[in-house]
Amino acid sequence: MRGAVLYGPRDVRCEERDVPKIIKPTDAIIRISSACVCGSDLWPYRGIQPIAQPTPMGHEYCGIVEEVGGAVKSIRPGQFVIGSFFASDNTCPTCHIGYQSSCQHRELVQGAQAPLLRVPLADGTLVATSEIPSEDLIPSLLTLSDVMGTGWFAANAANVKPGSIVVVVGDGAVGLLGVLSAKQMGAARIIAMSRHPARQKLAKDFGATDIVTERGDDGVARIKELTKGIGADSVLECVGTQESMMQAIRSTRPGGYIGYVGVPHGVELNGEQLFFAHIHLHGGPAPVRRFLPELIKLVLNRKISPGKVFDLTLPLDQVAEGYRAMDERRAIKALLRP
Amino acid sequence: MRGAVLYGPRDVRCEERDVPKIIKPTDAIIRISSACVCGSDLWPYRGIQPIAQPTPMGHEYCGIVEEVGGAVKSIRPGQFVIGSFFASDNTCPTCHIGYQSSCQHRELVQGAQAPLLRVPLADGTLVATSEIPSEDLIPSLLTLSDVMGTGWFAANAANVKPGSIVVVVGDGAVGLLGVLSAKQMGAARIIAMSRHPARQKLAKDFGATDIVTERGDDGVARIKELTKGIGADSVLECVGTQESMMQAIRSTRPGGYIGYVGVPHGVELNGEQLFFAHIHLHGGPAPVRRFLPELIKLVLNRKISPGKVFDLTLPLDQVAEGYRAMDERRAIKALLRP
Repeated sequence: MRGAVLYGPRDVRCEERDVPKIIKPTDAIIRISSACVCGSDLWPYRGIQPIAQPTPMGHEYCGIVEEVGGAVKSIRPGQFVIGSFFASDNTCPTCHIGYQSSCQHRELVQGAQAPLLRVPLADGTLVATSEIPSEDLIPSLLTLSDVMGTGWFAANAANVKPGSIVVVVGDGAVGLLGVLSAKQMGAARIIAMSRHPARQKLAKDFGATDIVTERGDDGVARIKELTKGIGADSVLECVGTQESMMQAIRSTRPGGYIGYVGVPHGVELNGEQLFFAHIHLHGGPAPVRRFLPELIKLVLNRKISPGKVFDLTLPLDQVAEGYRAMDERRAIKALLRP
Repeated sequence: MRGAVLYGPRDVRCEERDVPKIIKPTDAIIRISSACVCGSDLWPYRGIQPIAQPTPMGHEYCGIVEEVGGAVKSIRPGQFVIGSFFASDNTCPTCHIGYQSSCQHRELVQGAQAPLLRVPLADGTLVATSEIPSEDLIPSLLTLSDVMGTGWFAANAANVKPGSIVVVVGDGAVGLLGVLSAKQMGAARIIAMSRHPARQKLAKDFGATDIVTERGDDGVARIKELTKGIGADSVLECVGTQESMMQAIRSTRPGGYIGYVGVPHGVELNGEQLFFAHIHLHGGPAPVRRFLPELIKLVLNRKISPGKVFDLTLPLDQVAEGYRAMDERRAIKALLRP
């Protein structure tokens, strides 16, 4: 089969790869309905997170179960399934608390930008729908595997409640779906920080009430103006740089909440500054598995359409163009048809 | 009058000071019932937090109102009152949310190690009891001004609930009262990290179920052993050093909570490490004012006895010995009789 492999900075290729096989009896093999490129794929693509060897790419997936290992009990061939980018057993003490992305037996799913994918810990990881969903819902269902689950976790970690005043730092796909999540959770006001017209428009479609184009001190001043001088109740940090994290911290009111889901790269937080900011901070790799049942229902009932973040669709063979377009911010998120 | 003044590292003197006067119409002057030395007084005492000029010391207080300014409405001379180390108006948006220690008009109260004290923003800051309390309750009531309010905030910020498994990092007075707070909030298990026999004993009196003497990697390993291998639900960080903060972070389970109240000195947190620790982090200067009504009631009803942290009582004239004894860890906390 042909799948995406990253060779080094800005060198991703669609090439012949071995067909994945059941390795452990808890594995499943699924036939990918659609794949996509994640914002976090850009870290190694840009060389900021070096890779040791050519690496099969892709960790967002949904599709039809082809085959399961001998120990798999709840998942059956023929089912349509979605799973998280972290496989989890869903039975350990950490999973029980709802932090499946820190499962004691977690494994990163890799190689989803391909027609077939091996998913470890299938019973714990995969959630099946009762019927095969309609084709037009596939993009939205695919987002639940990571990008939408992550935006949802950002809003959840930032304690968004009905009536909350929310700021979203980052206008990538996660940030935009953070806007959608905050809206769904009942936020009264959602301030999206973005300078990019197409992304501003989608943020508004998803429920943003205000757009702030300023950054740094000016951005903080603008947020304060919009929030009685004290800052937002909830801030979603969806980038992962020092600048974005400080933007988030300084935009939050005392006692307010930050949900941070951008994987931090080179971020250092000063203890004293954090202390006097008086904020709540929570984040990490999104425990997508916890949210899957609820989010699948919202998509199947057409209450949310997170698939709108895909503004570029390509055949898998053109995966390199998908990465390029996202790297250059020509596309918000690229869908790949295997 | 004679009061404590810090001149420089390890040089605190009891000397003649001006009697405080009403400066603003929102001020009150109170006659101090008892004063004390705070763990945070040791930072400037040790020279870690340099002072620019001789500084009147003390920010924990309770006593009888002597005089109020013309704009003070709810506080009257003759009342017994307790207030926080941060004066607050209790009317601004930040106070309304319960973060009075980040009040938009906050002022640090200073000079409480003396017979008389000026308290700014008296109406917002001070809470009066309905009667003059019995003399034996004064030490416990005094703790509510900072040390007990801070231990309580640590437990509150660390989300301690009935049944929680709690770790307390730091066996100073704040840590010990964090143990008491966790117990009062219904924690099932309270693990106190301490190597000091007298403090271990008081921790047990306050409700600690386990004592861990190890630190660093060994301390983390011991906490994991005691918590199904995953760490504690709630960790109270009551020191403020890099070592104690890392101890706290590494002792918390994924999805668990850290309440940190030790003023950070030289603490830097690595974003990536924090991200993958998957914890909730909240702290800052304790909004003591929020908790005062509830804590006063608990003390007056003799449900809690936080005054037990005072293991040394001195006349105010011997304030230098109080600092020395705490600096050398001969005393947990020194009470000063003006």
